[in-house]
Amino acid sequence: MPKEGITPRAEDYNQWYLDIVRGADLADYAEVVRGCIVFKPTGYAIWEAMQRGLDDRIKATGHVNAYFPLLIPKSFLMKEAEHVEGFAPEVAEVTRAGGEDLAEPYVVRPTSETIIGYFYAKWVRSWRDLPLLINQWANVMRWEMRTRPFLRTAEFLWQEGHTVHADEADAEQETLKILHEVYADFVECEMALPVIKGLKSEKEKFAGALRSYALEAMMQDGRALQAATSHNLGQNFARAFDITYTDQNNTVQHAWTTSWGISTRLIGALIMAHSDDEGLVLPPRIAPIQVVVTPIYKSAEERAAVLEVVDHITAAWKGVVRFKVDNRDHLTPGFKFNEWELKGVPLRVEIGPKDIAKGSVAVARRDIPGKAGKSFLSQTGLLEALAALLDEVQQALFDRALRFREERTFDVTTYAELREAVEKGFARCYWAGSTEDEQRIQDETKATIRVIPLEQPNTVGRCVLTGKETEQQVIFARAY
Amino acid sequence: MPKEGITPRAEDYNQWYLDIVRGADLADYAEVVRGCIVFKPTGYAIWEAMQRGLDDRIKATGHVNAYFPLLIPKSFLMKEAEHVEGFAPEVAEVTRAGGEDLAEPYVVRPTSETIIGYFYAKWVRSWRDLPLLINQWANVMRWEMRTRPFLRTAEFLWQEGHTVHADEADAEQETLKILHEVYADFVECEMALPVIKGLKSEKEKFAGALRSYALEAMMQDGRALQAATSHNLGQNFARAFDITYTDQNNTVQHAWTTSWGISTRLIGALIMAHSDDEGLVLPPRIAPIQVVVTPIYKSAEERAAVLEVVDHITAAWKGVVRFKVDNRDHLTPGFKFNEWELKGVPLRVEIGPKDIAKGSVAVARRDIPGKAGKSFLSQTGLLEALAALLDEVQQALFDRALRFREERTFDVTTYAELREAVEKGFARCYWAGSTEDEQRIQDETKATIRVIPLEQPNTVGRCVLTGKETEQQVIFARAY
Repeated sequence: MPKEGITPRAEDYNQWYLDIVRGADLADYAEVVRGCIVFKPTGYAIWEAMQRGLDDRIKATGHVNAYFPLLIPKSFLMKEAEHVEGFAPEVAEVTRAGGEDLAEPYVVRPTSETIIGYFYAKWVRSWRDLPLLINQWANVMRWEMRTRPFLRTAEFLWQEGHTVHADEADAEQETLKILHEVYADFVECEMALPVIKGLKSEKEKFAGALRSYALEAMMQDGRALQAATSHNLGQNFARAFDITYTDQNNTVQHAWTTSWGISTRLIGALIMAHSDDEGLVLPPRIAPIQVVVTPIYKSAEERAAVLEVVDHITAAWKGVVRFKVDNRDHLTPGFKFNEWELKGVPLRVEIGPKDIAKGSVAVARRDIPGKAGKSFLSQTGLLEALAALLDEVQQALFDRALRFREERTFDVTTYAELREAVEKGFARCYWAGSTEDEQRIQDETKATIRVIPLEQPNTVGRCVLTGKETEQQVIFARAY
Repeated sequence: MPKEGITPRAEDYNQWYLDIVRGADLADYAEVVRGCIVFKPTGYAIWEAMQRGLDDRIKATGHVNAYFPLLIPKSFLMKEAEHVEGFAPEVAEVTRAGGEDLAEPYVVRPTSETIIGYFYAKWVRSWRDLPLLINQWANVMRWEMRTRPFLRTAEFLWQEGHTVHADEADAEQETLKILHEVYADFVECEMALPVIKGLKSEKEKFAGALRSYALEAMMQDGRALQAATSHNLGQNFARAFDITYTDQNNTVQHAWTTSWGISTRLIGALIMAHSDDEGLVLPPRIAPIQVVVTPIYKSAEERAAVLEVVDHITAAWKGVVRFKVDNRDHLTPGFKFNEWELKGVPLRVEIGPKDIAKGSVAVARRDIPGKAGKSFLSQTGLLEALAALLDEVQQALFDRALRFREERTFDVTTYAELREAVEKGFARCYWAGSTEDEQRIQDETKATIRVIPLEQPNTVGRCVLTGKETEQQVIFARAY
């Protein structure tokens, strides 16, 4: 029987997603601010956990944080030809301030390459200043036509790294280091989301980049979601903003820059990859609450006895697991179970008079609904057992998502097979087509090249569309 | 002899401040975005340390974080009469987006009472939903005419707490809890900044508040700086946005709300309270780098030997003190000393061949320039000795600032004395005047009532201006 308020995935995947967001109390529609949402406390706590995991890795790889202005002179956007084409149509403009019309409007940053480029041109002088490795945590705004909570909102939150390098090799190394050591490591280890690392096609790359790399994950409806991007911007922005340095031979050179980002969009991926028809499912490492403890009692006497044991048991938990004791008195255990299931807490511990008598507790895994996910654990050594179980859940979620992706990834050799495959998941195929060919496939199937995987088979095959021989395999899919 | 590039305080306090900001590389002027600055990595790292200290305390007192839209429908600002008067003249307006003129402009949030009030009206239904305790970390924008790095910028960063309560007593308790347990505790313990806690006068309170509380700190020129504010908003915003709840007797009531904030302005206070003519001085608890280690050597051989000892000594420091080994080879020790002095690192450790021979290191305290602040410490037990010394520096900075404030606080009984006192510092006096009287004093002396201290002498005296008998003492000062 489907859970009240949650449309089953099989019935309507889009409505299921919206039901999960509402049921877990992650966000509210900001209907008075077009295309925006409120990140409610439960949703924002997930973002905070993501920030910690990302920020640690960004700093461990030698980057520092800074903060640049929200507003960008509109003319800055025009300085890089591809960039303006990509972003100008969707910016919000500040035209009045302090009660007066502005001579030149500002745009609310849709991304910060241009404003940061302006400052980097001032700051970078010599090869000794390089590499310059800066990250920014910020809000950005893109006036999107169709919006969905987390996945596509007019305002969203993200981190954007912006670095400057002496040469192409160093910029490329940075771009890939971020992809592997920061993004893939974070997304796979913390969010339990298996990803395909690869290059974007010319058609899909960032507006203004030389090369864009990305991580693509598969959602439970077989569609792709771009989890992170890392761009080698070449010298495009360095030329547009005149970011130059004096090299060791005293020659002035244009620098090379990179940019890379992960946004609150990834919360949407988290929801769509792991959740089920009972509600949200959160991987333990990213879960704001990892264990919820529900005391079970019928009388005031039982209540006092149970809560005493709960206090005693959880006294050593602080700083080891993130837990919450749900001792709300006016709600039934059943109501509480339902609420914490909806909110995706990985483990539920129940303690009642019978458990006290037996010196055990009942534990329910959120990732395995029903009886199969329930077990009894001794109160002795409980903390260690729970920590081990959290690791097990983390791994199980990753394994399940990986298995799902593998089952839904099809090696296709003909266009007919590709068309069929992208109805269900990823189509992996040899590709030697042009950007126009890719556009034609998109028009006909709604699928695009999500990624040219870094891991290639090193064999030769025939392009799925043109029949040309090639060594290059790509992933076609419909995308969020 | 004054340090190169730093104007002495005694000569030109305002220029000194700007020289410190530039010398410590804290910020850059964003001359292309009116009134804005770039928070450079060194400056932003201070904000990150402040965020950690504040966020911990905000959460420890039962609050959670959330995120609300940057843009606010302009009409929202108009709903609370005093609020619109206070903020409408200085907002930036988004009038175009996605290539089209908007029917109703948005303002970039100057503060979020109105947009958050709108959502709270949707979320709050019953007394069980109260208190609602939410904080937001965000950027805000106020189109100020005269700006100064950190102290007054068009865009700044802050946290803003917004809470909803069932009655006045609960709202007042929250307002004061934030003032004492979150703000005063943070500012005094972490930033080593002694503050006077008190109430704002009617003239100086927040636009739309019932009562505003604040922390006032004294800068080294004797002027006051408001370090934090906590407002009991009464039912003003609850009425404007119709935030109501059903109480335990099933009656619908208007709720009571509060709001409170600390901003990047406090970085300006930090600079102005502790720094000297040598550069920035940072309290150890807030310093991104607490100890800088400078190896001293003349030959490659010495270098290798010294760096080996440095590695050995600092191996156990990770996670205990925040330190940096400055092993840049192309710079002299003197250049490095100067740079770390400018940047305010609390302790400098020097290790050279002579120190190795003696099993000691030389330590220099940033808060005590010259020989008086230098000592030699044994390499045995060094980490513990440094940790103790950091605590000592932290306390010394607080004590020095407190002594300074006490020396510059004058009990005045006549208007003539008040006029003289505010030239040098705080004037403490009995006050029974009106808002018009306060305005007159401001017009004539540039000083305002900074705060009505919570700690009152409980004696009766005569108002400094009107001569009326009163129990109320206030602090008059010129303010930033």
